[in-house]
Amino acid sequence: MKLNIALLAGDGIGPEVIDQAVKVSDAVAQKFGHEITWKPALTGAAAIDAVGEPYPDATHEICKNADAVLFGAIGHPKYDNDPSAPVRPEQGLLKMRKALGLFANVRPTFTFPSLLDKSPLKRERIEGTDLVFLRELTGGIYFGEKGRKDNGDTAYDNCVYTREEVQRLAKKGFELAMTRSKKLCCVDKANVLETSRLWRETVQAMEKDYPEVEVSYEFVDAVAMRLVQWPNSYDVLITENLFGDILTDEASVISGSMGLMPSASMGAEVSLFEPIHGSYPQATGLNIANPMATVLSAAMMFENFGLMEEGKAMRDAVNKALEAGVVTEDLANGGKAYGTKEVGDWLAANV
Amino acid sequence: MKLNIALLAGDGIGPEVIDQAVKVSDAVAQKFGHEITWKPALTGAAAIDAVGEPYPDATHEICKNADAVLFGAIGHPKYDNDPSAPVRPEQGLLKMRKALGLFANVRPTFTFPSLLDKSPLKRERIEGTDLVFLRELTGGIYFGEKGRKDNGDTAYDNCVYTREEVQRLAKKGFELAMTRSKKLCCVDKANVLETSRLWRETVQAMEKDYPEVEVSYEFVDAVAMRLVQWPNSYDVLITENLFGDILTDEASVISGSMGLMPSASMGAEVSLFEPIHGSYPQATGLNIANPMATVLSAAMMFENFGLMEEGKAMRDAVNKALEAGVVTEDLANGGKAYGTKEVGDWLAANV
Ligand SMILES: CC(C)[C@H](C(=O)O)[C@@H](O)C(=O)O
Ligand SMILES: CC(C)[C@H](C(=O)O)[C@@H](O)C(=O)O
Repeated sequence: MKLNIALLAGDGIGPEVIDQAVKVSDAVAQKFGHEITWKPALTGAAAIDAVGEPYPDATHEICKNADAVLFGAIGHPKYDNDPSAPVRPEQGLLKMRKALGLFANVRPTFTFPSLLDKSPLKRERIEGTDLVFLRELTGGIYFGEKGRKDNGDTAYDNCVYTREEVQRLAKKGFELAMTRSKKLCCVDKANVLETSRLWRETVQAMEKDYPEVEVSYEFVDAVAMRLVQWPNSYDVLITENLFGDILTDEASVISGSMGLMPSASMGAEVSLFEPIHGSYPQATGLNIANPMATVLSAAMMFENFGLMEEGKAMRDAVNKALEAGVVTEDLANGGKAYGTKEVGDWLAANV
Repeated sequence: MKLNIALLAGDGIGPEVIDQAVKVSDAVAQKFGHEITWKPALTGAAAIDAVGEPYPDATHEICKNADAVLFGAIGHPKYDNDPSAPVRPEQGLLKMRKALGLFANVRPTFTFPSLLDKSPLKRERIEGTDLVFLRELTGGIYFGEKGRKDNGDTAYDNCVYTREEVQRLAKKGFELAMTRSKKLCCVDKANVLETSRLWRETVQAMEKDYPEVEVSYEFVDAVAMRLVQWPNSYDVLITENLFGDILTDEASVISGSMGLMPSASMGAEVSLFEPIHGSYPQATGLNIANPMATVLSAAMMFENFGLMEEGKAMRDAVNKALEAGVVTEDLANGGKAYGTKEVGDWLAANV
């Protein structure tokens, strides 16, 4: 297979972890006889510094024409304390999601037996957790009309959803549930919000098309609780953009494996793959960042092309590295810590 | 002191736990020479059944003219699977908050040493946690314009905040921080929402009036994570209505003491006190519900009248009961479980 991948390294540790994912992907490609052409492009603070905006048109052209996008991380402390700055890295992220139509953010949370002790939760609460959030990513309050009135003294953000947007996301949720345990949880706030009532009635109407899937409906506040209490009681969850933002981040820390969690953002055309961790600016250039989440994101990318064995080879390499203790300092537990690059080399040699 | 308290027992276990709080409050009042007149009024499903709406005018009259409101719980399963039913218990709650102007929901999360093992979190993560959320309760997306367009295929909910609403809530936050460790965290999503930017700039402008308070600003998704990771790193947190709904519920389960957590909703005139747990319909009438959270809510009520010793007497009684093992089945750990009423009697006898 010939693959044409847009490579958006971004800020902070982004470039370092992306380098390792490229290395491991190339090793897998070579082993299985594929050819990857990487197309680097600017994004985030790096793009603001270079050309004045976080998601330049040139980057969009490259992404649009790629088979997939592999993304590092964006965000830089110089923008952190000024949320109203005219140009911010996050705007690039939102613009990219919208422009590429990346409507479904797929965020798995699973556990690695060797990392269970890193979880803030007790072992019996977290063991066996294997859930996936599908977060709607291009609608809701993120993209509704927002602004000020009354000389700036009143602010508003409108949350809007159409039935089609809900159907599109829910369809992915039902399909994913069919490949797993056939359980789907729709997370909303239908006791308060009209948009949530639209979500709920739309999903309810789709139930008949997937008679095998058992659907439950839970309020977002209840899910925020149960995620901490019994995360292993969930399987596939679908939700709107803002609830998804909050809950997927909450879910990410319960497993103890946050530094290892990959994610995908699926669009009608192109899809994007990225680690869920941030740009970790303090670690930039120190060769200490954990590249495994980015490598696992690349594995999701292969699997999304139907290249299941290739994806599995990458996952297996990560598991082997964890067992062999070939890990960065975040996982070293006081033992020997390898560098970002060394972990990447080891994974590439072991796929 | 003569106190005139509206008593809203509500649904499910509400009446049972309220009975105990009344009993314990009366015992304290007697001991300290106060006189409480209780004014029972209908709310929730009980009110819908009786008069067709969840927060009847007669109830509002009683609450408005009371010195405070003591509230049990509302919600009934017959309304649970129909979020668009024309009349729902939750509507009563929202109407009541708005009509009484209960703009600040005070939700402490603290730990009882004897209950630490009930927490889903590891002991070292949760020990020493003592935080308070101040959730804005009468604005935001809960009360903005909501509806449908395009023949029902598009739904919207508008989130609106005014500077005054933010100031009013933030003022309570700064004041509370001054009585505690002088640390205040403002939770928002200022990298995306205009209402959050209004929150942030308003709180920033108030910092100079409280030079001793150290203020931090965190995004809601980051707080959802850190609450699970290091809950004891927080002290006072202020936030808008919907974020508060999600985060306070998340916070409630981390301590292991959820069944014991009280809350207050403060207005300009009257304030309301209630346990954070729900109406627990399955337990209705079984004399098994834990009344301690409601008793502790009544303690908050006394303290809000400046009756600190009275509040402390009630808290001390609860602590003593926990130590003596005079607890309901949720806390009995396989040991002897007392009934709701028996725990109430014991507390009343021990204040
Ligand atoms: C940076 C921010 C705009 C973004 C979001 O809220 O979507 C981030 O938190 C995420 O979840 O990818
Ligand atoms: C029942 C519901 C409307 C309510 C809310 O969302 O405010 C509840 O979850 C709460 O937190 O008191």
